[in-house]
Amino acid sequence: MELYNFFRSSASFRVRIALQLKGLAYDYKPVSLVKNEHLTPGYGALNVARLVPLLKDGDTSVSQSLAIIEYLDETVPEPPLLPADALGRARVRSLALDIACEIHPLNNLRVLRYLVGPLKVAEDDKNTWYRHWVETGLAVVEQRLAAAPSRYCHGDTPTLADCVLVPQIFNAQRFDCGLDHVPQVMRVFEACMAHEAFQRAQPSACPDAS
Amino acid sequence: MELYNFFRSSASFRVRIALQLKGLAYDYKPVSLVKNEHLTPGYGALNVARLVPLLKDGDTSVSQSLAIIEYLDETVPEPPLLPADALGRARVRSLALDIACEIHPLNNLRVLRYLVGPLKVAEDDKNTWYRHWVETGLAVVEQRLAAAPSRYCHGDTPTLADCVLVPQIFNAQRFDCGLDHVPQVMRVFEACMAHEAFQRAQPSACPDAS
Repeated sequence: MELYNFFRSSASFRVRIALQLKGLAYDYKPVSLVKNEHLTPGYGALNVARLVPLLKDGDTSVSQSLAIIEYLDETVPEPPLLPADALGRARVRSLALDIACEIHPLNNLRVLRYLVGPLKVAEDDKNTWYRHWVETGLAVVEQRLAAAPSRYCHGDTPTLADCVLVPQIFNAQRFDCGLDHVPQVMRVFEACMAHEAFQRAQPSACPDAS
Repeated sequence: MELYNFFRSSASFRVRIALQLKGLAYDYKPVSLVKNEHLTPGYGALNVARLVPLLKDGDTSVSQSLAIIEYLDETVPEPPLLPADALGRARVRSLALDIACEIHPLNNLRVLRYLVGPLKVAEDDKNTWYRHWVETGLAVVEQRLAAAPSRYCHGDTPTLADCVLVPQIFNAQRFDCGLDHVPQVMRVFEACMAHEAFQRAQPSACPDAS
């Protein structure tokens, strides 16, 4: 398998965690978002959305980080990244989507570029925007984790929700977001970072880290 | 089952389509986003994220539209809303996420309110922002559908991807987005709207429609 990704892309980081949790070897194919390598015709031929990550598995490829992780979980079932029961799976997916739909899309590179470009938003206002969605979005996750606390987001083993939570915290720390209001979130984050799969997948461990 | 939702919310519309496709009866619980009913303490007690839709099923509840649809598909398998093969499921989920993560989060009500509120973005610029993400996002979906055309987004029966696509087109039409560049998308949209489940779920058919 080949993973087209970028060390600092949090959607890429999600999939790297899942691959590490599954113990799957893969070829790391760096695509620099800073150098706009994702916008080249070569990458566009691989992924029409021109987003990372993209998983190539033989002749086929899968885009969208959550779809990739579900695909990995279906094709390599052990260890499972979703609980055995439908309600548990719903909770894990819902927590993952609380971040993947409500926080991250508002703060990715192309959106920040649109704010300061066409909308001429000042740098300070852009950073306030960033922190607003992170801090309010994580407050929701905090309440949900506090309502049913466990070592990881859901239960005693890492799931899809943890794959999505951890990269969001890396982003939050990089942009100086307030995190004092989310102690349960940070407790789960620390539990994840004590797990070697999360350590190995983190941006600083990537071959294209700079 | 009870569905807390709003007739014009496209995330709500996705779940209504899934419920109709499954032939499931449910109590329609209107939550007006325009009247800020989702921000009341009463609704907050049901859903800490204060977003619609929310599915209540007995003592339990599920939030996030895609998680709800996966939950429905697991608990009421017929007719399936995901293909039988892992690669097909990955494609359907990825298409759904191309809309649910790349288009819709940028255009929902709270984001538009933040643009014109704190960021003081002019009405025209807000509408350009809206159309930008719809038009560029649907162009990606168009290329993906054109690469493997079928009656619906994937195959001859509606899937999760169609549940997500159709509400996005309703939004696009409401905000006068360009759609001439996405003929495959519109062909699939027409096929869906010829299906009575989509007809029954549409905003104008809802009890709270205004």
